[in-house]
Amino acid sequence: MRSCLTVVLAAGEGTRMRSLRAKVLHAVAGRPLVAHVLAAVQATGGRVAVVVGPGADAVTAAVKAVAPDADVFVQAERRGTAHAVLAARAALEQGADDILVVFADTPLIRPETLAALRAPLAAGAAVSVLGFRPADPTGYGRLVTDGDDLFAIREEKDASAEERAIRLCNAGLMGLSGAHALALLDRIGDANAKREFYLTDAVALARESGFRAAVTEAIDDSEVLGVNTQAQLAEVGAVLQQRLRGALLDAGVTMAAPETVHLCFDTTIAHDVTIEPYVVFGPGVSVEEGAVIKAFSHLEGARVGRGALVGPYARLRPGAVLEADVHIGNFVEIKAATVETGAKANHLSYIGDARIGAKANVGAGTITCNYDGVLKHKTDIGAGAFIGSNSSLVAPVKIGDGAYVGSGSVITTDVPADGLAVARGRQTVKQGWAARWRAIASVKKKS
Amino acid sequence: MRSCLTVVLAAGEGTRMRSLRAKVLHAVAGRPLVAHVLAAVQATGGRVAVVVGPGADAVTAAVKAVAPDADVFVQAERRGTAHAVLAARAALEQGADDILVVFADTPLIRPETLAALRAPLAAGAAVSVLGFRPADPTGYGRLVTDGDDLFAIREEKDASAEERAIRLCNAGLMGLSGAHALALLDRIGDANAKREFYLTDAVALARESGFRAAVTEAIDDSEVLGVNTQAQLAEVGAVLQQRLRGALLDAGVTMAAPETVHLCFDTTIAHDVTIEPYVVFGPGVSVEEGAVIKAFSHLEGARVGRGALVGPYARLRPGAVLEADVHIGNFVEIKAATVETGAKANHLSYIGDARIGAKANVGAGTITCNYDGVLKHKTDIGAGAFIGSNSSLVAPVKIGDGAYVGSGSVITTDVPADGLAVARGRQTVKQGWAARWRAIASVKKKS
Amino acid sequence: MRSCLTVVLAAGEGTRMRSLRAKVLHAVAGRPLVAHVLAAVQATGGRVAVVVGPGADAVTAAVKAVAPDADVFVQAERRGTAHAVLAARAALEQGADDILVVFADTPLIRPETLAALRAPLAAGAAVSVLGFRPADPTGYGRLVTDGDDLFAIREEKDASAEERAIRLCNAGLMGLSGAHALALLDRIGDANAKREFYLTDAVALARESGFRAAVTEAIDDSEVLGVNTQAQLAEVGAVLQQRLRGALLDAGVTMAAPETVHLCFDTTIAHDVTIEPYVVFGPGVSVEEGAVIKAFSHLEGARVGRGALVGPYARLRPGAVLEADVHIGNFVEIKAATVETGAKANHLSYIGDARIGAKANVGAGTITCNYDGVLKHKTDIGAGAFIGSNSSLVAPVKIGDGAYVGSGSVITTDVPADGLAVARGRQTVKQGWAARWRAIASVKKKS
Repeated sequence: MRSCLTVVLAAGEGTRMRSLRAKVLHAVAGRPLVAHVLAAVQATGGRVAVVVGPGADAVTAAVKAVAPDADVFVQAERRGTAHAVLAARAALEQGADDILVVFADTPLIRPETLAALRAPLAAGAAVSVLGFRPADPTGYGRLVTDGDDLFAIREEKDASAEERAIRLCNAGLMGLSGAHALALLDRIGDANAKREFYLTDAVALARESGFRAAVTEAIDDSEVLGVNTQAQLAEVGAVLQQRLRGALLDAGVTMAAPETVHLCFDTTIAHDVTIEPYVVFGPGVSVEEGAVIKAFSHLEGARVGRGALVGPYARLRPGAVLEADVHIGNFVEIKAATVETGAKANHLSYIGDARIGAKANVGAGTITCNYDGVLKHKTDIGAGAFIGSNSSLVAPVKIGDGAYVGSGSVITTDVPADGLAVARGRQTVKQGWAARWRAIASVKKKS
Repeated sequence: MRSCLTVVLAAGEGTRMRSLRAKVLHAVAGRPLVAHVLAAVQATGGRVAVVVGPGADAVTAAVKAVAPDADVFVQAERRGTAHAVLAARAALEQGADDILVVFADTPLIRPETLAALRAPLAAGAAVSVLGFRPADPTGYGRLVTDGDDLFAIREEKDASAEERAIRLCNAGLMGLSGAHALALLDRIGDANAKREFYLTDAVALARESGFRAAVTEAIDDSEVLGVNTQAQLAEVGAVLQQRLRGALLDAGVTMAAPETVHLCFDTTIAHDVTIEPYVVFGPGVSVEEGAVIKAFSHLEGARVGRGALVGPYARLRPGAVLEADVHIGNFVEIKAATVETGAKANHLSYIGDARIGAKANVGAGTITCNYDGVLKHKTDIGAGAFIGSNSSLVAPVKIGDGAYVGSGSVITTDVPADGLAVARGRQTVKQGWAARWRAIASVKKKS
Repeated sequence: MRSCLTVVLAAGEGTRMRSLRAKVLHAVAGRPLVAHVLAAVQATGGRVAVVVGPGADAVTAAVKAVAPDADVFVQAERRGTAHAVLAARAALEQGADDILVVFADTPLIRPETLAALRAPLAAGAAVSVLGFRPADPTGYGRLVTDGDDLFAIREEKDASAEERAIRLCNAGLMGLSGAHALALLDRIGDANAKREFYLTDAVALARESGFRAAVTEAIDDSEVLGVNTQAQLAEVGAVLQQRLRGALLDAGVTMAAPETVHLCFDTTIAHDVTIEPYVVFGPGVSVEEGAVIKAFSHLEGARVGRGALVGPYARLRPGAVLEADVHIGNFVEIKAATVETGAKANHLSYIGDARIGAKANVGAGTITCNYDGVLKHKTDIGAGAFIGSNSSLVAPVKIGDGAYVGSGSVITTDVPADGLAVARGRQTVKQGWAARWRAIASVKKKS
């Protein structure tokens, strides 16, 4: 097993995003670009070094959140890709059989492709370059090759007509033999128009020294899509959604209109789940077999049990746990609440910081008053309880098993099991009042 | 008028769906695949025989639900398409001028195409094969033809280079002359790699006997799309949605973004109806002239009258009947309720098992408490009544014409016409309480 | 600076729309087709004459709403495009250096293109024709040219095979030198199959008189898309949405799925705003820097301040003003209400005709009862107030700064600053009632 160090370049300014947020912190499918790249790198294995720009504390924090063992280096000045890699000199000096250089703004890269990029190094190449075949190669460096042998990376402006006809282009990602990496990187100069140090020069330098350079093609060309603009962010997001949706379809999830279902990197959905159009998943959702997620639902940090029925217009927020056969209906919000087997909350309710016991029925318009302006409190509803419509349950409060709350009640103290609680005004009627009032009001309206 | 027997093959296992549900019971545009095919077959006319797999009670039930007169046959073993057709031998023996063989997993087939497939039989052909021209013919049997004469169906593996270049492919659907059908089917053998009986062999056998085989092209190639995977189910659904949307546009329905409107096979919408983006129709909806369905609405089993205004975020469930000029607004759910002319329920309400009289105004947050935990009851609101916001109407209850219900009331007994009912607590105020409470609570919070 | 008169032809019947509404009043991106065209014309400058059909009062009203200075002329009979232009004879007789003829049903036309169409007139041409290159030129008149010189407009039926191969087609829009316009128009005859007067004949007539005719190409071909059917209305709308979304992306707005965001012609969104999937903007919305609009939100006539958090499922209606850092959550409707800095209304509320003071907290299910059946009244909530869940605020009513309203209260009189108001029934409990009731009810159910 060869050891590996991956250097993740995350120092780009991303000015074309026109955003105050660092480019690599923009998210697709629920996590930042850099986190996608780190996940692919971690799946490949080995040590990780991340090169960030000056003052990029937020980037460092995002890196540490998903890759606590990664070493973070600051590139003080932005003087080209080779210069950026050398910002991680300390990591390079520790040595590794293979060095990979990847970009934090190409979130679609696959672990399999990174592994393939390492293969030529094991076979003795000093440099291994990732190639791809864009629909329109304009602007990309062309890879002059013979089979897997890479002779040169020719920038478009320097390319002959014949070379411009080459479809195989440089994706930017590179593998370097650990034995030669530092020596090659240190020999890269800045004798060019922009006075920058280009990583691509490693190919020519390696070949000058008699080493082999090799090319590896990406599994699919979308893998190397980079993000420099908001439009590209959306485009990369769309490709990722297609991958995620395709995987769910393959796994037996039924989606009438998969292109309308927005998934996160970690969405877990079992076979025989039906997802109607217009469902949005935030991070941390799992859905078990046979559940139905109806249209216009929004789920985040939630678990949906077997056979549960969710939506339309259901919002499950973090900490929502629906056990088997639960029904959560329209205009219902569930937050930090466990809804036990077979319980129902079908209409216009807010259930927060609560437990709803098995087979309990929560009526339309029920609200758990979990916040008193300063602290949050818990509501506990027992198994088989019946909460009448439009009730307010002022937490902390406990409704016993099998208890019954009358419609429109404001419940402020615990209700015993099998008891009835009512807390509302008595109905009074004034005969003819409405007719008299309308007469007066219509005069008012004219005035 | 020639008699016809259509054999619908519905016995496929559909293992690639990775679903516990039988493949042909998966739905597009609101009904199962098999029901779409049966509808096309019924429009063509004649007797229907459906061949199902062993233990397919749910399929049989779905068939009987839409085609009660269809004969259902069980194919005990799955030994090829000809073997499947012969499972319906009893129906074949009853005889018919034309025999059609169709597949329950190709829901886009049109009656016009089935009729066209029969035409060569009337003109003396023994076999009539449906052809289509896929964008990529790889994997399909090629049709070797001269004009409408079909010489052979050549499977790809057996095809010459010249034959592989043929674009016209076998769609699988076939017509057989009733006079020859059984004789041909019985002569089909299983001398092939999989030891199956292939219906396509009927072509060669017919020609050996000196009969004519003919080809008919599908009206459009999407008609013969079959469903074997969840992705294909979604693809077929998308084609069907396009057809349904196109028909509505042609009929004078305005949709700003038709690709975001999801229709059912039976959705009926009149001219001069406007449908905003993101509207989902379940089965059984009709919308009359001049109505507006605003964004994010969800309708199922509902009737929307002339000039009604629905949504955004309105949910109409089965039994919702909106008469002319009704307004149903955001976060309002209507179920099994008639809303009479000009009545309004504009905000955050649940109206179930109810009648709302003409020009009545149902305030925000109104809930009909129709369920007592065991039984459902009706709410009757009179014409011109005014239901104050956040009221709970505990059914069974009747609000008289022109009556007025004070905001926040829980109404448990009938309100007379033109009367006022109030049922709520009296307001009490404690000066300075909030200031004192905050001081105490903030100490609590720190502790 | 040359003077200009633009004649906007808005008299088409639009029967293929199958709509009672005049074609040019159908809307895309929040305004009628004719208003889009008038906006482009107004950006170009000069006088405007609009030609409408008989009885088109609604069209005239729509024109006057956006272009009060435009002269409106009625074309009594529909006898061709030249005949329509001459309906504005009075305007033509007032004279202008340049005359432009545009169509009210091509809403994507750009001011830059109209300016380009005028350029040849300034250089001495008598006629200037807009050309475009459709993917499929079938049915369009071909432009026979040499460079910018236009020799003829050849209708398809009259075109030679060589001419049919021409890709550059007549878009219909035309510029005429003011010096020659009336003379040319008056010479156009109706000696053709339909007995109509065709504007295109001006090219041949001008050239016969020894004047130059010129061609100008549209910036992009979508500019000249015309609307004759509901499907074309949707298609034009889709192109416009793409333009609007692209402009927002370029300006630094983050949209994970821009194709799911529906914008209006006047939607204003600052950089570093995030818009989740499925957001619909009606007219008159502005969103400031750093705000987040979550999925399934619907905004119209609303201002969203810096850093505000809106949705999911938030509905902002006209007059909603959210100051900085406001939170408006799910199933909340805001209408004609100012929500001051840092205030929150996160769940299931209706806030209409109201002010919510800074940092106030409006609990779940709160409803401002702003309508008494005849008049609307205002609710005023002070800074830092806390409105308990499920409260009804019966307007006109004022909740003082820092005041506290108990959950489930119906507030009918003002609450003093820092005071507590409670208005609800007292809780009573009946032990064992639910158990007894269930026993009785289940017997009832069976009977």
